[in-house]
Amino acid sequence: MNFKEEYTDRVEKIEKILKKYLPEKKGYQRTIMEAMEYSLMAGGKRLRPMLMWESYRLFGGEGAAIEPFMAAIEMIHTYSLVHDDLPAMDNDEYRRGRKTTHIVYGEDMGILAGDALLNYAFETACRAFEEESEHALRIGKALKILADKAGIYGMIGGQVVDVQESGKAVSGEVLDFIYRLKTSALIEASMMAGAVLAGAEEGQVSRMEQIAGKIGLAFQIQDDILDVTSTTELLGKPVHSDEKNEKTTYVTWKGIEKAHEDVERLTQEAVDLLRKFPAKDDFLEELLKSLVYREK
Amino acid sequence: MNFKEEYTDRVEKIEKILKKYLPEKKGYQRTIMEAMEYSLMAGGKRLRPMLMWESYRLFGGEGAAIEPFMAAIEMIHTYSLVHDDLPAMDNDEYRRGRKTTHIVYGEDMGILAGDALLNYAFETACRAFEEESEHALRIGKALKILADKAGIYGMIGGQVVDVQESGKAVSGEVLDFIYRLKTSALIEASMMAGAVLAGAEEGQVSRMEQIAGKIGLAFQIQDDILDVTSTTELLGKPVHSDEKNEKTTYVTWKGIEKAHEDVERLTQEAVDLLRKFPAKDDFLEELLKSLVYREK
Repeated sequence: MNFKEEYTDRVEKIEKILKKYLPEKKGYQRTIMEAMEYSLMAGGKRLRPMLMWESYRLFGGEGAAIEPFMAAIEMIHTYSLVHDDLPAMDNDEYRRGRKTTHIVYGEDMGILAGDALLNYAFETACRAFEEESEHALRIGKALKILADKAGIYGMIGGQVVDVQESGKAVSGEVLDFIYRLKTSALIEASMMAGAVLAGAEEGQVSRMEQIAGKIGLAFQIQDDILDVTSTTELLGKPVHSDEKNEKTTYVTWKGIEKAHEDVERLTQEAVDLLRKFPAKDDFLEELLKSLVYREK
Repeated sequence: MNFKEEYTDRVEKIEKILKKYLPEKKGYQRTIMEAMEYSLMAGGKRLRPMLMWESYRLFGGEGAAIEPFMAAIEMIHTYSLVHDDLPAMDNDEYRRGRKTTHIVYGEDMGILAGDALLNYAFETACRAFEEESEHALRIGKALKILADKAGIYGMIGGQVVDVQESGKAVSGEVLDFIYRLKTSALIEASMMAGAVLAGAEEGQVSRMEQIAGKIGLAFQIQDDILDVTSTTELLGKPVHSDEKNEKTTYVTWKGIEKAHEDVERLTQEAVDLLRKFPAKDDFLEELLKSLVYREK
């Protein structure tokens, strides 16, 4: 299989895992299970579980504990989108061409579906203790990473500052803070938790964090570049939206050339760090590159 | 110390633990830390951490893992109130005589503060792995209980049905479902997690679940009774609110006399089950009784 086939194959496998861990739709509270499925099974790159899985393989992981964690990180990512779309936040009616969760199920259920997905992420990840009770401490460490990177020192923290500064011109320092927390933190959690669950050592986990941090930042810069250089057709969402909203982006901050250079540099640094591990993983290397050298 | 003094003493100790585990207010995302503190330190009975602590003691628990879990369950309870108060939910501007979180910090920060508290509950509970790494599996089990009882099969599930059925006449079966999930589930989590962290056996934990279930239900029925029999002055909130909202309650369902009887019976059954344990705990027995035979 070439990279594209391999990638498609893995997305399919991940979707199966997600479905397996979703709650059965039954009981008086059935609506919330439907709303959870509606938002979780709405497509997307499945990037975080894919990075987690591959990081797990890189360190020789072969157990069953990884699957609930893969489902959990995608649930966390999804809940953040559901709450982002709410009227009091971005007030979005569509995402990936489908109506957003609160439009379909009502605003109250939108809030509750987000809460339910976040909580269910931890319910799901905790199933790993049953799958591999001999590795309870390892699982505990991975859980802590997941929780920390999703919270006020990670994704939520970035979201808070993004909301606060919305519509204002922000300094480069603040922009960097938002990108590192809002985008990179969950990428870091994916790669770190995968490594930890496979039994990687502390130094290795911390190198995975570095790699993920660079990739997350490059990914976000590429997003800003595409908003300027791509077409609405290719991107599947309106381009030049940052300019219209007078938003400070990496491109307005450093200019398009420097932005391109930084994507290049950060990706190369991440790949160099990855190559320092004894095990070689061509798919992971290709995956990292594909994320940042993408056209949509 | 008599029961009242002992109770006050423990509330003070719990408040200290809560403060200890709250995040330091600093960084660009400082606002969210303030909102978390505002909502968590707003008073309240601190019932759930108190029940957890005492259940831990009942089984001889003496370690440090209990504290982060006590903080975690109160954070979960608090986030549920913050989201309950939102405009799309109950739309409450005041709680316990203070402005609600979204009134003070804005609706977007209200949503994010709730998310942050729920997530931070798991961050905090996970600190127990560092405190007692030799008991990682036990901590994992307690975490699973906490997550399960807070989610769609517990508190959130009850909330979903309560929201859906709001303003409608509901059957006794549905009312029972809502009470068991919305109110009892977190009480069950408190007593079960306390027991598990102290090393209680499966049968003991399941008896704690039974006790907590009965107490939770009795507590909720007493709430319905007080809405009919108490005064606004004593209760600190408007009485006869259920009647005004034409709400089905345990009192409208079964009548006030049967409601009184059931509170009595459920409490007695809980106390009888508690007394079957070899260890005697007068404070816990008094605490259970005080919850249901209360006047506010």
